[in-house]
Amino acid sequence: MDDEFESLRASAQEALRVRDLSAVGELLAAHDPPEIVRLLEQEPHAADRAVMYRLLDRESAMEVFELLDTGMRAELIEGLRDEDVALIFEQIDPDDRAQLVDELPAGVAKRLMQGLSPAEREVTLSLLGYPRRSIGRYMSPEFVRLRPRLTVGDALTHIRHRGADAETIYLLPVTDDARRVEGVVGLRELVMARADETVAGLMVEARTVRVTDDAESAARRIVEAQLLAAPVVDGEDRIVGIVTIDDASRILEEADDEDAARQGAAEPLRRPYLTTPVLGIVRSRVVWLLVLAVSALLTVQVLGVFEATLEEVVTLALFIPLLTGTAGNTGAQAATTVTRALALGEVRARDVLAVAWREVRVGFVLGALLGLLGFALASLVFDVAFGAVIGLTLVAVCTLAATVGGAMPMLARAVRADPAVFSTPFISTFCDATSLIIYFVIATRILGL
Amino acid sequence: MDDEFESLRASAQEALRVRDLSAVGELLAAHDPPEIVRLLEQEPHAADRAVMYRLLDRESAMEVFELLDTGMRAELIEGLRDEDVALIFEQIDPDDRAQLVDELPAGVAKRLMQGLSPAEREVTLSLLGYPRRSIGRYMSPEFVRLRPRLTVGDALTHIRHRGADAETIYLLPVTDDARRVEGVVGLRELVMARADETVAGLMVEARTVRVTDDAESAARRIVEAQLLAAPVVDGEDRIVGIVTIDDASRILEEADDEDAARQGAAEPLRRPYLTTPVLGIVRSRVVWLLVLAVSALLTVQVLGVFEATLEEVVTLALFIPLLTGTAGNTGAQAATTVTRALALGEVRARDVLAVAWREVRVGFVLGALLGLLGFALASLVFDVAFGAVIGLTLVAVCTLAATVGGAMPMLARAVRADPAVFSTPFISTFCDATSLIIYFVIATRILGL
Repeated sequence: MDDEFESLRASAQEALRVRDLSAVGELLAAHDPPEIVRLLEQEPHAADRAVMYRLLDRESAMEVFELLDTGMRAELIEGLRDEDVALIFEQIDPDDRAQLVDELPAGVAKRLMQGLSPAEREVTLSLLGYPRRSIGRYMSPEFVRLRPRLTVGDALTHIRHRGADAETIYLLPVTDDARRVEGVVGLRELVMARADETVAGLMVEARTVRVTDDAESAARRIVEAQLLAAPVVDGEDRIVGIVTIDDASRILEEADDEDAARQGAAEPLRRPYLTTPVLGIVRSRVVWLLVLAVSALLTVQVLGVFEATLEEVVTLALFIPLLTGTAGNTGAQAATTVTRALALGEVRARDVLAVAWREVRVGFVLGALLGLLGFALASLVFDVAFGAVIGLTLVAVCTLAATVGGAMPMLARAVRADPAVFSTPFISTFCDATSLIIYFVIATRILGL
Repeated sequence: MDDEFESLRASAQEALRVRDLSAVGELLAAHDPPEIVRLLEQEPHAADRAVMYRLLDRESAMEVFELLDTGMRAELIEGLRDEDVALIFEQIDPDDRAQLVDELPAGVAKRLMQGLSPAEREVTLSLLGYPRRSIGRYMSPEFVRLRPRLTVGDALTHIRHRGADAETIYLLPVTDDARRVEGVVGLRELVMARADETVAGLMVEARTVRVTDDAESAARRIVEAQLLAAPVVDGEDRIVGIVTIDDASRILEEADDEDAARQGAAEPLRRPYLTTPVLGIVRSRVVWLLVLAVSALLTVQVLGVFEATLEEVVTLALFIPLLTGTAGNTGAQAATTVTRALALGEVRARDVLAVAWREVRVGFVLGALLGLLGFALASLVFDVAFGAVIGLTLVAVCTLAATVGGAMPMLARAVRADPAVFSTPFISTFCDATSLIIYFVIATRILGL
């Protein structure tokens, strides 16, 4: 499978190099949209991406477009002629259209919106009316709802009439006269049932999400409960849309992307790595790096305070990277675990004390193990007093780092910030400075400096 | 929604505290399986989890069981009476059963397998015959296949007869006499079509996965292509099972869990954070921490080499944590981005040179920005020569760290190891040692030591 893709990629690149556009077109026509998406994602030259995209037939172009990242979509749109753009914009799903409006320059978005039919425009505007990052932005307003008193036979007829434009017909919300959700029924249950049974007899309790719910947590509930789709309701339980599991999976992948990037002190790239310009990558990292470097000036100041001690026993300097590194690693471990547990909803902001108490104990056990080892090694190489300094510092530093690493993401969540903002490197920097203080305080006491 | 859950949790904990089991039972009966799962995941006492689980009625117990992590499943199984276990084991899906066999002590698993009906045992054994981490372990062997010449009416009748036990009937593989996959058709298309159309006229090309494919990459292809399900085929394209998007999403969540943990230098927890014993958390971290601490001994040795230089200019020691920290952060950023791009399939092992070249440029630009700042500050506080040392060191160190951070995960992938194993902290430790060498070499040259 992967080898096949490699040979497709090699042939496409060769054909692009010699500008044999009809060969490129034939290659693309012979492959599935997901493979074409991979090809576009791994093509480093923007011009070649645009060429390939323009060579797709209309149907593939639409399907490929729906599978692309938002950043790539905006780039392709900007490279196309206005008529082509208007055509794509009209034909994609309303939820994809709402995402795209956020992505495009305001002028372009406005012109495109004006080109829509009044009905399509209204649908899109209604999605844009929900807050950014709410599930309302990602839902589809096109669904088929059933009434509870319908027979199965009539329900299937209704679905055949109304189902063509719907996002999904595999999960069908059952509503009352006021569009309030009374339950859901799966197409599977309808197909398996006798034609004279009623929808009310087959429907089960609906697991709905609120239209203003945070998109990530709503998506996670859908995926965790292994639902095919979930009705989206307003404050009065009236249905306004539907979210399918494939949309939910995509939302989660983007959220996990963001978390992964933040844990590494970078902002997520909006598009595939190889298609992002070097300066785009720099931009995603430079702010964090500067913030961290400026915070690290703290360590210079701490060491400045202990400069006299250092002059007296230069050997102390040898262990600085080992101790700060261990503190950073211990803090990073705790932060990573807790951030992930928060993302999965396994712990809540109010569990902060329970989490801190676990991490105190975990940090102490880890510190005791490393400390014993450090004591033994440093005693052998230097002397027992120096061994005691290293050993005790490791115990104290690991306990503190684990506690801080575990508590920081919890505090971030409590003030409704992204827990991943207090990322691993941020915690490392904090641990660097505190571990130096602990180190020199213990050293001056034990070595009598 | 979240407040409701909090009040459920508070009531459940209070009822457990006073041992009012009928109240606990009523609370559980009034809530959905996904909420009960959350409740179990946030309950820190194993005994109380077991009590709650035993109070569920049979149907909820089964549904809750299927939604739990593998670690939690094994724990609950071990706490139940043998008859209850045998009942659960017989009733869950074959793919869940195969996962559970891996999780349980060998003796328990063997006894349970013997209790199965011969047919169920055979199905389970066939899944266990595929390698660990292959998609074969996660697929369902229960599906409904159609023949191309069937009419839509006959196909629907066939589905009604055979569909009850199938994992899904929303995607139906179409096969020839030798069970080779010729295409797939959605239940949606069948329901929307006229009864006299044929399956062959409605079917589309199948996107299949190979039974021995790595589970994570197969799952990612399914989610990225937004498929409801994919047929799983053997080496001769014969169908052996089916994987649904909800199984695929679950595989991806577990893989992302593992990546997130590894990035923070810990092994993933097998179960929710609050339900993992303190020593379990220690176990997930201690090996990595020891490996990193032992590698950090390298920094002690490097500094030992330059001890004389340090004694001459103690001020050099003040900047050690700042420089190693910045190198570590730069390396971490590159490693995180590249690891994620590898996980998403955006870059391949053979792109190692392209990735390294991008990171050389990104690292140089970042280093130049930080270096200018460092030069200015250090020149003001100390003198221009010292400023030049700090500035030049930052340029060199950032360039090297980004390159190494970007290349390491690529090299890991090239030798078929998990890229996240060369995790952020591992790269930080490596960068610590090299940045110290660079620092002291530049310092001795410029300051003429």
